[in-house]
Amino acid sequence: MKLASRANGTPDGELLVVSADGTRGIAAGPGLPNLREALERWGEAVPLLADLAAGVEMGTGEPLDPASLMAPLPRAWQWLDASAFKTHADLMQVAFGHDPIVQEKPLMYQGMSHRFYGPRDDVPFPDAQGGIDFEGEFAVVTDFVPMGTSAADAAGRIRLVLQVNDWSLRHLAVPEMKTGFGWVQAKPACSAAPFAVTPHALGDGWQDGRVCLDLQVDWNGARFGAANGREMTFGFHDLIAHAAATRDLAAGTIIGSGTVANRDYARVGSSCISERRAIEMIASGGAPVTGYMKPGDRVRMAAVDAHGAQPFGEIDQRVICAD
Amino acid sequence: MKLASRANGTPDGELLVVSADGTRGIAAGPGLPNLREALERWGEAVPLLADLAAGVEMGTGEPLDPASLMAPLPRAWQWLDASAFKTHADLMQVAFGHDPIVQEKPLMYQGMSHRFYGPRDDVPFPDAQGGIDFEGEFAVVTDFVPMGTSAADAAGRIRLVLQVNDWSLRHLAVPEMKTGFGWVQAKPACSAAPFAVTPHALGDGWQDGRVCLDLQVDWNGARFGAANGREMTFGFHDLIAHAAATRDLAAGTIIGSGTVANRDYARVGSSCISERRAIEMIASGGAPVTGYMKPGDRVRMAAVDAHGAQPFGEIDQRVICAD
Repeated sequence: MKLASRANGTPDGELLVVSADGTRGIAAGPGLPNLREALERWGEAVPLLADLAAGVEMGTGEPLDPASLMAPLPRAWQWLDASAFKTHADLMQVAFGHDPIVQEKPLMYQGMSHRFYGPRDDVPFPDAQGGIDFEGEFAVVTDFVPMGTSAADAAGRIRLVLQVNDWSLRHLAVPEMKTGFGWVQAKPACSAAPFAVTPHALGDGWQDGRVCLDLQVDWNGARFGAANGREMTFGFHDLIAHAAATRDLAAGTIIGSGTVANRDYARVGSSCISERRAIEMIASGGAPVTGYMKPGDRVRMAAVDAHGAQPFGEIDQRVICAD
Repeated sequence: MKLASRANGTPDGELLVVSADGTRGIAAGPGLPNLREALERWGEAVPLLADLAAGVEMGTGEPLDPASLMAPLPRAWQWLDASAFKTHADLMQVAFGHDPIVQEKPLMYQGMSHRFYGPRDDVPFPDAQGGIDFEGEFAVVTDFVPMGTSAADAAGRIRLVLQVNDWSLRHLAVPEMKTGFGWVQAKPACSAAPFAVTPHALGDGWQDGRVCLDLQVDWNGARFGAANGREMTFGFHDLIAHAAATRDLAAGTIIGSGTVANRDYARVGSSCISERRAIEMIASGGAPVTGYMKPGDRVRMAAVDAHGAQPFGEIDQRVICAD
């Protein structure tokens, strides 16, 4: 099943059920006005959504206007983002110049969740001095998860899968990280691709709690990376169990993978600029060559399946700055 | 003006307007069903709330049942907690054994906001091994704050003031802090005192963006501390400007002061156990004496004004553990 949120002047948007090919959609209706509320009563929502999904495959609904789509969850109660790709964590250590992080548990921080930009929204920053970077990620949306849920049980609490761009301001990130308090100024709102899909709808693209798809990232029209999500050190079920160790997770919690990265980065490229800069530093033994994003720059991100389809649709956005 | 939220089976509760003495309340009614939504259209809500406040002072409404009250915001879109008392930060450096944090900006992390426990709720932890600690704090609730708002302008965006207990698991906090990612497992849900009050309603208790009241903290019936909120290194307006440097803040964002602490801690005591342990370590040059909370332990917290009144009401809670 594939879901989306259409702009309707409310903070949460209007919940749509979308055809598998992403071309048609139908409003879920006033009983399920938005995805946030549908997630809060998922057991009741699913049969209705499934009926609508069957109908939209048979031609009900209307053609989707991609420009009308918001993030699937334009606001959420909780966004916990991990750094679950060891290759990314290792490269960021080089980029940021910090000591190795000795930690057997997943790395995870709490980020802002009260806004997720839509896939085509311009993304505003106060200026270009912060070191504007994209981070291509996958994420899952959970049902209510009680405190102390095991990783095995957490697998059954995954309701939807998302594709996310975790915008980062690298020059602010290093000093914030040194405080130990995590990131506030360095992690403004993320963006999300238009479609939230059930794990089942990903077919072979969902294995062992991982999104086993290439995430194509283009910066100003040039291919920047196409790393695959399968190399997560921890699966999403592990990340959920980590997050729920000492707290209940609200229905609609979003858990991120961290930047998708592969050991074979020389071939597949990267999903964020900071990683490429680290690779340049390693190769040359000196300073990085690639700069961060500038006002007017665009980034496009789309996961692609074995048939060339884009299960989550695509993010295609422009950076804008006030100065 | 004083507001509260009464349990009614919904996640947000029912918005009440409360008399200045905290004894009577009246429901704001179906047009303003809960505080979260009232904050999202504050300009429209305020005249209605002010009328109800005038009425409740003259005897409308009904006697309040303290047991029916939830946190003023049982869930919020964002909780950003600072560490704005230098005395606390200095003592925590001793307690945690980390290097001094060199930072001219406020220290701030993003914490979980999808649940705030009510003032009398039992507070569950998975076990007593985490080093269960309370942290007595003040906090403010903001209106919508645009990215880049100055501290001077932020002062006018403060809608309500809260009293919070930021529950902490100290044994989990040190390793999480070392990752640089901030706290997830070490910072479960906070609790809040029952009444949210406008800065104006605090009278002389609100000066220069600070809550200039003693925060009485009792652990198992014995006075533990009564530090005053006036010694914040940064005022709440500064904290809001810091938080909004690279993001808009949603209406209903909660910004915390961090643990209230005074230079004269030898006389006033502390607002968290970890601080007392640091003071013991400094005094003896050895190990701390005081242990953390155990299942069944109670903590009571109430700010007290010059007349002995409790503007926020009081938190009085028991720790429970699954094991």
